[in-house]
Amino acid sequence: MVYLTRLEHFNAAHKLYNPAWTPEKNDEVFGPCANENWHGHNYELFVTIKGQPDPDTGFIYDVKQLSVLIREKVIEKVDHRNLNLDVEFMQGKICSTENLAVGIWNELKQNLPLGIQLHCIKLYETPRIYVEYFGEQNA
Amino acid sequence: MVYLTRLEHFNAAHKLYNPAWTPEKNDEVFGPCANENWHGHNYELFVTIKGQPDPDTGFIYDVKQLSVLIREKVIEKVDHRNLNLDVEFMQGKICSTENLAVGIWNELKQNLPLGIQLHCIKLYETPRIYVEYFGEQNA
Amino acid sequence: MVYLTRLEHFNAAHKLYNPAWTPEKNDEVFGPCANENWHGHNYELFVTIKGQPDPDTGFIYDVKQLSVLIREKVIEKVDHRNLNLDVEFMQGKICSTENLAVGIWNELKQNLPLGIQLHCIKLYETPRIYVEYFGEQNA
Amino acid sequence: MVYLTRLEHFNAAHKLYNPAWTPEKNDEVFGPCANENWHGHNYELFVTIKGQPDPDTGFIYDVKQLSVLIREKVIEKVDHRNLNLDVEFMQGKICSTENLAVGIWNELKQNLPLGIQLHCIKLYETPRIYVEYFGEQNA
Amino acid sequence: MVYLTRLEHFNAAHKLYNPAWTPEKNDEVFGPCANENWHGHNYELFVTIKGQPDPDTGFIYDVKQLSVLIREKVIEKVDHRNLNLDVEFMQGKICSTENLAVGIWNELKQNLPLGIQLHCIKLYETPRIYVEYFGEQNA
Amino acid sequence: MVYLTRLEHFNAAHKLYNPAWTPEKNDEVFGPCANENWHGHNYELFVTIKGQPDPDTGFIYDVKQLSVLIREKVIEKVDHRNLNLDVEFMQGKICSTENLAVGIWNELKQNLPLGIQLHCIKLYETPRIYVEYFGEQNA
Repeated sequence: MVYLTRLEHFNAAHKLYNPAWTPEKNDEVFGPCANENWHGHNYELFVTIKGQPDPDTGFIYDVKQLSVLIREKVIEKVDHRNLNLDVEFMQGKICSTENLAVGIWNELKQNLPLGIQLHCIKLYETPRIYVEYFGEQNA
Repeated sequence: MVYLTRLEHFNAAHKLYNPAWTPEKNDEVFGPCANENWHGHNYELFVTIKGQPDPDTGFIYDVKQLSVLIREKVIEKVDHRNLNLDVEFMQGKICSTENLAVGIWNELKQNLPLGIQLHCIKLYETPRIYVEYFGEQNA
Repeated sequence: MVYLTRLEHFNAAHKLYNPAWTPEKNDEVFGPCANENWHGHNYELFVTIKGQPDPDTGFIYDVKQLSVLIREKVIEKVDHRNLNLDVEFMQGKICSTENLAVGIWNELKQNLPLGIQLHCIKLYETPRIYVEYFGEQNA
Repeated sequence: MVYLTRLEHFNAAHKLYNPAWTPEKNDEVFGPCANENWHGHNYELFVTIKGQPDPDTGFIYDVKQLSVLIREKVIEKVDHRNLNLDVEFMQGKICSTENLAVGIWNELKQNLPLGIQLHCIKLYETPRIYVEYFGEQNA
Repeated sequence: MVYLTRLEHFNAAHKLYNPAWTPEKNDEVFGPCANENWHGHNYELFVTIKGQPDPDTGFIYDVKQLSVLIREKVIEKVDHRNLNLDVEFMQGKICSTENLAVGIWNELKQNLPLGIQLHCIKLYETPRIYVEYFGEQNA
Repeated sequence: MVYLTRLEHFNAAHKLYNPAWTPEKNDEVFGPCANENWHGHNYELFVTIKGQPDPDTGFIYDVKQLSVLIREKVIEKVDHRNLNLDVEFMQGKICSTENLAVGIWNELKQNLPLGIQLHCIKLYETPRIYVEYFGEQNA
């Protein structure tokens, strides 16, 4: 088994906000991340797939096509967007990095061609904070 | 003359939007950066000062105090904020990286202790885009 | 299961020195790392915890509080210190990156709040050398 | 079990080309990577070994000697070379990053001193593409 | 005056070779960089322009259009190419990083729209080697 | 004029300490940097030279020989050393990054071959703090 990783980038606005709570409770729990006027990040998204290299190409999967896939299925939905307002797959969820990584996994998982196994979503929110998700079967 | 640089970090939401234009004109000129629901970035801010090292300390200026100064005078005003809505020194300006770098220069310039010479503001908007400003006298 | 990582930074002096050996044997085995006058590093410390995101916050654990914990329990004990002389949890051990990573794991493990599972300590000694430790149960 | 990683660097030329195919088929599958005049990369090679720290040295293995080993057994064979033409262990294989990582694993595996366990080869082809290989027993 | 920088990336093969010299002299002067079978690099290209921000856009120049310009005028000519064989503007020159940076400056300079002032080409050949060129007027 | 930069790395211990002051005054001014038991850093040293590329080689100066020069004249004197105790050119000076950069400039300046012009010493003490020195004539 060989693992192949591609890095893509997107920028987005968000806030951490639980609509079931009062604004005061949100401020207390989330601090400046709950700013009602939003803040934002440059997210760095590492997508890792795994498989056996094809003897004819040496590829698990063509990394250029992997890049196209990630852009079509994920980046176009989140780049230069507001994660809370504009992104369908985050509706009804708190826009934490944890939930965003799981959301991106699910979005990619159901859109991958046969024969590609998704292994890991690694998502940097800032240069000092990142989240990894390997799917439910690895829980 | 010796130059000393300190890197600080902040996150913010913004949009590129000229209120004198129609939404269509804004979309045409700024593209996805004009998203009315905002997007955001991890900004990396490099502040460079210059001077002669003090013979008693070896310092141009204590870099820990420089960090405190940058945080008090700049980071607290922009971190986890919406640059268009929350930041006084950007009011009435397009929130481009160019204008933000000039705004940060002015904000710091008028708040520096005597004897520190500000040399450069270098501001990364993304890992692939940055702006530098050296003040008007270097125009 | 989702994994959350926080990066913290510290600077320290150390030497590689086995007090059971002669100075000559130390020089022979450790080379310039055995310099009796010490040398030092900027250590980059990645702490990874794992868990299920809380439905109310979207968090495994508040990453700002994780940062406070790491600073209180580890960084304050090692930053701007001499690892051989000043750090209680390294007494009687060779101050290699391997032993330091295990020492930091133990220091954090016994000080974590209930419900946080420590997953990995990843410690860069230089930009080209790092050590990872996942605890004894993963041996 | 503790894991120790050393980063080494090499530069090489290569092309992606399957000699069993026509030039047209190669162009169709590999695109500009099939350029008959070659292109090239700065490869970043992370080698991870694992083991128990030696009580006398604190080392799994002396990282300076690990560096020497990687340079002797791998870097000297690939640095400033053409992977397709000059590298014996890549003969008869497509010079993809996947195959190169597996080739480097095999080259190192058979040349390691007793008692060092090779854990992972992580190979960056560009800053946005990397491959990991953990050996066959982890397939 | 404000300075705006955009980073682009390309991969290429090359060798350092002076055709007026014998192969032995080339080996003696250029060492492994003269390998007749080529080697290659991931080049990182920083293009800096300067000007006054436009009051209507806040831009010196639209950084997305700057990226398109760099890709059209430079990257398409060098990416996945052999600098010695495939690149017209390097014909008759030694393919050193110094000459390549000057060549890219000239290629961009004559293709820039009116009103953009090119300030600097900064070109990384490896993560530890880079060249800067500011044009002849700054010689 | 073209500028060529080479990055080298060294590790060292130091403390900020003015022997003309009491320990209390040192603690007050330098804080944890005055720890009598030392601390240390991974220093990243960027050396920039300038000149005209030689028509026969395309080089301002052979970057491999520049690397050898920097290692012989600077790195061997500071790597794995105590800057306060072991480094002759820092005797009688406070071991601040400012003074260290000036000291490295002087050390290199007097040891460069004819025809190489030293342009800049850029020295990172941590990933967030660096100093630049361009010599006295640029003061």
